[in-house]
Amino acid sequence: MRIALSTGGGDAPGLNTVIRAAVLSATNLGWEVLGIKRGYAGLLGEDEIIPLTRDTVRGIGHLGGTILRTTNRLNPFRYPRREPNGTIREEDRSDELLHKAREFGIDAVISIGGDGSLAIAQRLYEKGMKVVSVPKTIDNDISGTIQTFGFDTAVSTAIEAIDKLHTTAESHDRVLVMEVMGRHAGFIALHSGLAATADVILIPEIPFDIAKVCDKILARDQAGRHFSIVVVAEGAYPVGGTHSTIGQSLPGEAERVGGVADRLARDIQLRTEKECRSLVLGHLQRGGMPTGYDRLLATRFGGAAVRAIAAQRWGEMVALQSSDIVTIPIKEALGRPKRVRLDDDVVVTARATGISFGD
Amino acid sequence: MRIALSTGGGDAPGLNTVIRAAVLSATNLGWEVLGIKRGYAGLLGEDEIIPLTRDTVRGIGHLGGTILRTTNRLNPFRYPRREPNGTIREEDRSDELLHKAREFGIDAVISIGGDGSLAIAQRLYEKGMKVVSVPKTIDNDISGTIQTFGFDTAVSTAIEAIDKLHTTAESHDRVLVMEVMGRHAGFIALHSGLAATADVILIPEIPFDIAKVCDKILARDQAGRHFSIVVVAEGAYPVGGTHSTIGQSLPGEAERVGGVADRLARDIQLRTEKECRSLVLGHLQRGGMPTGYDRLLATRFGGAAVRAIAAQRWGEMVALQSSDIVTIPIKEALGRPKRVRLDDDVVVTARATGISFGD
Amino acid sequence: MRIALSTGGGDAPGLNTVIRAAVLSATNLGWEVLGIKRGYAGLLGEDEIIPLTRDTVRGIGHLGGTILRTTNRLNPFRYPRREPNGTIREEDRSDELLHKAREFGIDAVISIGGDGSLAIAQRLYEKGMKVVSVPKTIDNDISGTIQTFGFDTAVSTAIEAIDKLHTTAESHDRVLVMEVMGRHAGFIALHSGLAATADVILIPEIPFDIAKVCDKILARDQAGRHFSIVVVAEGAYPVGGTHSTIGQSLPGEAERVGGVADRLARDIQLRTEKECRSLVLGHLQRGGMPTGYDRLLATRFGGAAVRAIAAQRWGEMVALQSSDIVTIPIKEALGRPKRVRLDDDVVVTARATGISFGD
Amino acid sequence: MRIALSTGGGDAPGLNTVIRAAVLSATNLGWEVLGIKRGYAGLLGEDEIIPLTRDTVRGIGHLGGTILRTTNRLNPFRYPRREPNGTIREEDRSDELLHKAREFGIDAVISIGGDGSLAIAQRLYEKGMKVVSVPKTIDNDISGTIQTFGFDTAVSTAIEAIDKLHTTAESHDRVLVMEVMGRHAGFIALHSGLAATADVILIPEIPFDIAKVCDKILARDQAGRHFSIVVVAEGAYPVGGTHSTIGQSLPGEAERVGGVADRLARDIQLRTEKECRSLVLGHLQRGGMPTGYDRLLATRFGGAAVRAIAAQRWGEMVALQSSDIVTIPIKEALGRPKRVRLDDDVVVTARATGISFGD
Repeated sequence: MRIALSTGGGDAPGLNTVIRAAVLSATNLGWEVLGIKRGYAGLLGEDEIIPLTRDTVRGIGHLGGTILRTTNRLNPFRYPRREPNGTIREEDRSDELLHKAREFGIDAVISIGGDGSLAIAQRLYEKGMKVVSVPKTIDNDISGTIQTFGFDTAVSTAIEAIDKLHTTAESHDRVLVMEVMGRHAGFIALHSGLAATADVILIPEIPFDIAKVCDKILARDQAGRHFSIVVVAEGAYPVGGTHSTIGQSLPGEAERVGGVADRLARDIQLRTEKECRSLVLGHLQRGGMPTGYDRLLATRFGGAAVRAIAAQRWGEMVALQSSDIVTIPIKEALGRPKRVRLDDDVVVTARATGISFGD
Repeated sequence: MRIALSTGGGDAPGLNTVIRAAVLSATNLGWEVLGIKRGYAGLLGEDEIIPLTRDTVRGIGHLGGTILRTTNRLNPFRYPRREPNGTIREEDRSDELLHKAREFGIDAVISIGGDGSLAIAQRLYEKGMKVVSVPKTIDNDISGTIQTFGFDTAVSTAIEAIDKLHTTAESHDRVLVMEVMGRHAGFIALHSGLAATADVILIPEIPFDIAKVCDKILARDQAGRHFSIVVVAEGAYPVGGTHSTIGQSLPGEAERVGGVADRLARDIQLRTEKECRSLVLGHLQRGGMPTGYDRLLATRFGGAAVRAIAAQRWGEMVALQSSDIVTIPIKEALGRPKRVRLDDDVVVTARATGISFGD
Repeated sequence: MRIALSTGGGDAPGLNTVIRAAVLSATNLGWEVLGIKRGYAGLLGEDEIIPLTRDTVRGIGHLGGTILRTTNRLNPFRYPRREPNGTIREEDRSDELLHKAREFGIDAVISIGGDGSLAIAQRLYEKGMKVVSVPKTIDNDISGTIQTFGFDTAVSTAIEAIDKLHTTAESHDRVLVMEVMGRHAGFIALHSGLAATADVILIPEIPFDIAKVCDKILARDQAGRHFSIVVVAEGAYPVGGTHSTIGQSLPGEAERVGGVADRLARDIQLRTEKECRSLVLGHLQRGGMPTGYDRLLATRFGGAAVRAIAAQRWGEMVALQSSDIVTIPIKEALGRPKRVRLDDDVVVTARATGISFGD
Repeated sequence: MRIALSTGGGDAPGLNTVIRAAVLSATNLGWEVLGIKRGYAGLLGEDEIIPLTRDTVRGIGHLGGTILRTTNRLNPFRYPRREPNGTIREEDRSDELLHKAREFGIDAVISIGGDGSLAIAQRLYEKGMKVVSVPKTIDNDISGTIQTFGFDTAVSTAIEAIDKLHTTAESHDRVLVMEVMGRHAGFIALHSGLAATADVILIPEIPFDIAKVCDKILARDQAGRHFSIVVVAEGAYPVGGTHSTIGQSLPGEAERVGGVADRLARDIQLRTEKECRSLVLGHLQRGGMPTGYDRLLATRFGGAAVRAIAAQRWGEMVALQSSDIVTIPIKEALGRPKRVRLDDDVVVTARATGISFGD
């Protein structure tokens, strides 16, 4: 048996942990393991195929990143090619990919990645590749699994950051706006904001009214709490507007620049006359050593992926349900992206403790 | 509406977080909240009853410990009384407790605690007290809830400790034995050991054979890995023996002293002739700032407990099931303590990656 | 004896630690301690004067921020007053300040703050106030003391951030530019960059050549290291240019927006054609729990300040020299701000290990 | 130029950091670098000599431990040999060591280690070896340098542990005794105890009176502070007694077992009737990722060691003095071990804030 591993999409803490667990589980079964570098580029002649042995994965279980490197720009179905004139054209190289996989004697593939990688895995599976997926998303927006590795680390990083901003906000009577990841799903903002006792949480699932955000801040001010912490998901947007209309709310203003947090901070300062600062957490959420929770979850996913191969569960994805790791069809996970439900107890408790969602 | 909060049993990171969330949720409903100090001692005249307000709980969400203090020695049904001659006699003071609660105008009680506190809560409920419980256990051995707050922090502390020991073990060619909590359930040892890539994990659910433990260590030695990490739950014991027979395996030896880890380390050193050191993590697992995961879970539990009171779900306990907080009858949780299942995917993956359970 | 404490300038981890140590030291001598809120605003009628007792400072030793709050906008010699027409006028209220201090029976003041606060303290001392200073600067740019509290925490925060970015940069073949504090002195960038093994460090003391920065990045690329980490102090600027000329180097470009890191990242991407991302660490450096080092240093400073008052060392500042806490005249510290010396062994070692300063 | 590196003595966070900085500095000068495994065992035929290149040291800067492994049992002047009958005999193999070093073409050696290693380095230097030392001690007890790497990490680990114990002690009204390293010097206990606000600190430099320790605990109790934290260095001992007499103070007691902390906890419980628990921090202090401070200091030491070789400063040791790295004769450092001075401002401030040293 010879299997291959691939990591695709953005970085997430725990990728190396999955790789380690899968390689150890597979080699202990007597299987051979290959690593395809940079998504599938290693199979398409642009990067390497490397053997993954017990020695290769020694000591990587707690390291962030992926020894296979990753990419979110090399979809084999729409693979970019640079023309002589410099323009980029996309072409379908999936047949070549399957051919190469056979040439290398690869019996099955473990594809570790987010929704983009899951969609590619599903199409490769439909073309006959024996593939098992491991879901990966910082944003926790993949259906069918309670959680994915990387999310707990991202939330923890956000909580630490809010804790740090908290003391400064309080000492200086300031409003601090912190932007976290979450283009379509507000889980990072919601979980970190509630755990770190933010005052306002803005998420894509709940369009906000800037006036209500400011009401909350001013109400705190009058109650003697002269500071506020606003956590905003990058995809949050105002009621009746779009993402890009944040910061356009005051007429006569010059065009706004910067991200959501910058524009929001400026609006709040103009409206409340309180000193306001913003911070974009950005890539800090994607890197670094995974938390204990993510190290365990990623290890369980890696082990389960090898068992799924042994059980020939092609086209399936490992997933956490209740407290067990199961497998579900990739197709099922792809159907309906996960979003924060408004009746989620996390939202309900957040409101109950006095947090405003700007609605 | 006037409710009271009580914390009982051993310390666990997240107690203050539960208190904060419950107090904010309740005061936002216009309720009054009292805090009973040291379990129920505050109601039995030995300690205080204090008002819990928005100000009382300010800034405690990320602090370990409990502002209400806690105890595992003041069961109201078997309350200790020191006789004039110095001996301790136990008496049932539950009627007095209910009487006092009525005197203070307490409409309902949120009891935060482990299996001991749950059993007390159930009996008080049966005597007519309107009680809702929040489960608390470092060991994660309470049924009906996937997890309780404090467990993730304890596991994280254990992982950090193993990480630290790892570098020294490797640099010095040593065997390091680390003892973690878990008298009846091995979850802390299992989760931290797998996440931190221990070589041997010994838990109460799987009696071990010291010869097999040493085989694993010597096999590693021969493969050029001259060090090993053994994680042992305090309640682990050898096949056919009992907890106290660890370290008795070699005839002619003087009586052993110290805990499981000490005795195990000594046995391994005698049998393998490798330098062996032990460490007891002890109270480090119980204290300190809760992890992000536990801060969120404890907040959700606190909020849910107040909602359970509003819904008059007397005699019930908040619990995490799938990704939601629900309530279940306390009685249900008490019936069957949670243990590591041998077919748990965590155990299966641990074995698959090469970890020995000494069996 | 009745003394008063004041904290001024930006937030820094360790302020509360100084306050705690000073209050305990003073109250153990039988002195009374007052806290002046928000710089000197508490004495000028805009905020409070509060008693500081053993109870007030309980449990604050490891908390960031300052219970006295702080400000960098309320210089008593140039105190802002809002005119009826809305404009801000500055006026000298130092006489009023001294008068109020006498009214409150304040015998001596411990002023905790940065160069702004030190200059104010010196002028108040010259006007007759009995003042002792505790230096505070995130940037470590105050002369006469090897280090100040807050700097080690800021450097640690920066190192953790670089560690996180490192894994993503490496996994994605990216250049990551991280901006840290340091308007005039590059200590944070230098120390964090060397400790966390950055590839390029840009500081105000060494004007950089963007071409040389890119040379370093491309040389790494050719050696198979397809990523690079650039740490830039907010005050770094190009040779022959000024701070604001960063990002102006390519003709025909539209005007740049954003901070140093943004503009630098854009320049590097244009020149190297490598994917480039930027991150501004901002207020994360100022807040949060102080490191062990800073908790100790801040405690030592607080204790030494009280001893300096007992020894009537008016107009002096506590300082770390060799491994001892001494006092020096504030005036001495004010004369010459501390900068990174080009022959500093930290710079020499950084160059020796292959780090480029862009020169 | 061909140099060799060796690490000796106990583990300390930062060893790999020194190795990395030295290897990069040396290879950038065009030198060749060898690594002698396990102290000098690699040269004496019992272990390996390995080439150390840029690739070897990649990514090890923040890892604890030493890739060269270490030992405190293989002194070349008293090298152990196991006789056929099983006994261990020591022999002087220093001539062989020098001979082997010449055979390998080693021009100079960087010896990284504690006082044992420094003494060996001095003797090898006297026999003609070109050696430069890098001091290493968790305990910070080497003279001539303000600090050594590893100490800040050990202190930080101890502080984190005390923080964790603190919440449990307070919630449970307990006395917690924590034992830290420091056989002859109490720096770890002193620095961590003061920074983490312990109530009692016991160090080898100040023999303690158990009655006074208990007085402090009982005085706190009466002031409503029903818990206490005692930090004890492993080498602390009672007035007029020796290390081993701790816990012998009560007549009629059976013989005590366990370490200092265990015996102390038992004594305190007997005398104060307060519940008392102990914890031995042990190897947790030696391992793991170095703090930012230690990563910087170790890097500076590594770079300075290579410069010392270039400057032919044989028989010297790198050292931190004021804020600079200098070199001093090894002999100077060996003469007088560093101890806590009773007039050290850290001791004075500790007493001033109310901490008892049991004297």
